[in-house]
Amino acid sequence: MAKCVVLLSGGMDSATVLGIALSAGHECYALSFDYGQRHSAELDAARRLAAATLEHRVIRMDMGQLGGSALTDSRISLPENGGEGIPATYVPARNTVFLSYGLAWAEVLEADAIYVGINAIDYSGYPDCRPEYVAAFQAMADLATKRGVEGQPIEIRAPLIDMSKQEIIEVGLQLGLDYGGTVSCYQADASGAACGHCDACRLRKGGFEAAGVADPTRYRVE
Amino acid sequence: MAKCVVLLSGGMDSATVLGIALSAGHECYALSFDYGQRHSAELDAARRLAAATLEHRVIRMDMGQLGGSALTDSRISLPENGGEGIPATYVPARNTVFLSYGLAWAEVLEADAIYVGINAIDYSGYPDCRPEYVAAFQAMADLATKRGVEGQPIEIRAPLIDMSKQEIIEVGLQLGLDYGGTVSCYQADASGAACGHCDACRLRKGGFEAAGVADPTRYRVE
Repeated sequence: MAKCVVLLSGGMDSATVLGIALSAGHECYALSFDYGQRHSAELDAARRLAAATLEHRVIRMDMGQLGGSALTDSRISLPENGGEGIPATYVPARNTVFLSYGLAWAEVLEADAIYVGINAIDYSGYPDCRPEYVAAFQAMADLATKRGVEGQPIEIRAPLIDMSKQEIIEVGLQLGLDYGGTVSCYQADASGAACGHCDACRLRKGGFEAAGVADPTRYRVE
Repeated sequence: MAKCVVLLSGGMDSATVLGIALSAGHECYALSFDYGQRHSAELDAARRLAAATLEHRVIRMDMGQLGGSALTDSRISLPENGGEGIPATYVPARNTVFLSYGLAWAEVLEADAIYVGINAIDYSGYPDCRPEYVAAFQAMADLATKRGVEGQPIEIRAPLIDMSKQEIIEVGLQLGLDYGGTVSCYQADASGAACGHCDACRLRKGGFEAAGVADPTRYRVE
């Protein structure tokens, strides 16, 4: 029973990663971040999912104060049609900040691994979602930590990195996950109901369609 | 006039780094962290030093919640006699978390560099104070950021990395710094007066002695 920290946003990907870590028999510690994201219903979803873990901590952070993203700055418009390059929803250095906290907690817990739902396929516009980024973070972490220095590095595991949304959904359904309780929408309302047309909703919808299964997402009527 | 983010704790090292960045003619943006450290007088010192910058942000963070260090957990004793290995004052992954925030802000500001007072000589017990760590963080940052992807990576500058405390003090005095306004003590009181005997005080005292200059530190009478 290895200990691991699972970065849990409350979205589909991190819910799947938690399912993978639990099914591998790990002792899971869930870590979420309240970073001024628009869609705080995600955090409620994270709290529900975390019932299956040994402990859940929600770190409040001031990333919104630093600005620069449509996810944390209401003056920047949310994209609805994909597009080229790095999207406006990119939060500067977000995965680096999240993984760094994960590293800190993993060291304190003496955990062997950090699970993260980073996925390169459907979010290839984000630089910190690529396999080479994860490898570089691992190399840095090995040098940054007491455990790394002592030859027991904390492993960064990103099991979804090469999966499409369809594959993620298929894995999750095999593990018995109920995606109805997860929130992906960039502008979910307080109850967690999704808008159905932001980039996150489009990717998610497309995943269920491609997997050929019913979409359990609760969309709001507008 | 290149823009840069300066990680500013309010201690001697970061004050010197700020002096170096300012004397190089950079537009400096100071970033400090309120992470539950025992010695909050350091933050007051940071605020005074930051008067020379264009902007100063203090990020409140929950690192204390994650525990594991004598600096953030009052149940862990502060060391007073150096000793072998990684000291109890090591805050897990602290520099990684701080540099990650610096990276986020640098990206938003479109800054060219992050200055950090990491120093390998007098704190060699901390894994995240070594040159190889800084190099690995740089490699990771180049892959993590929009700027890195676009071929304008944000440079991590640690000008003190190989300096002794004596050399740091000599550089700072040449730049006209008044170290009397900086706080290094792990258990400074609310006014910033130092205890004189914790590891941070001992290193600092030793630096002034080695440099052959008067120690401007305000020590409290006990």
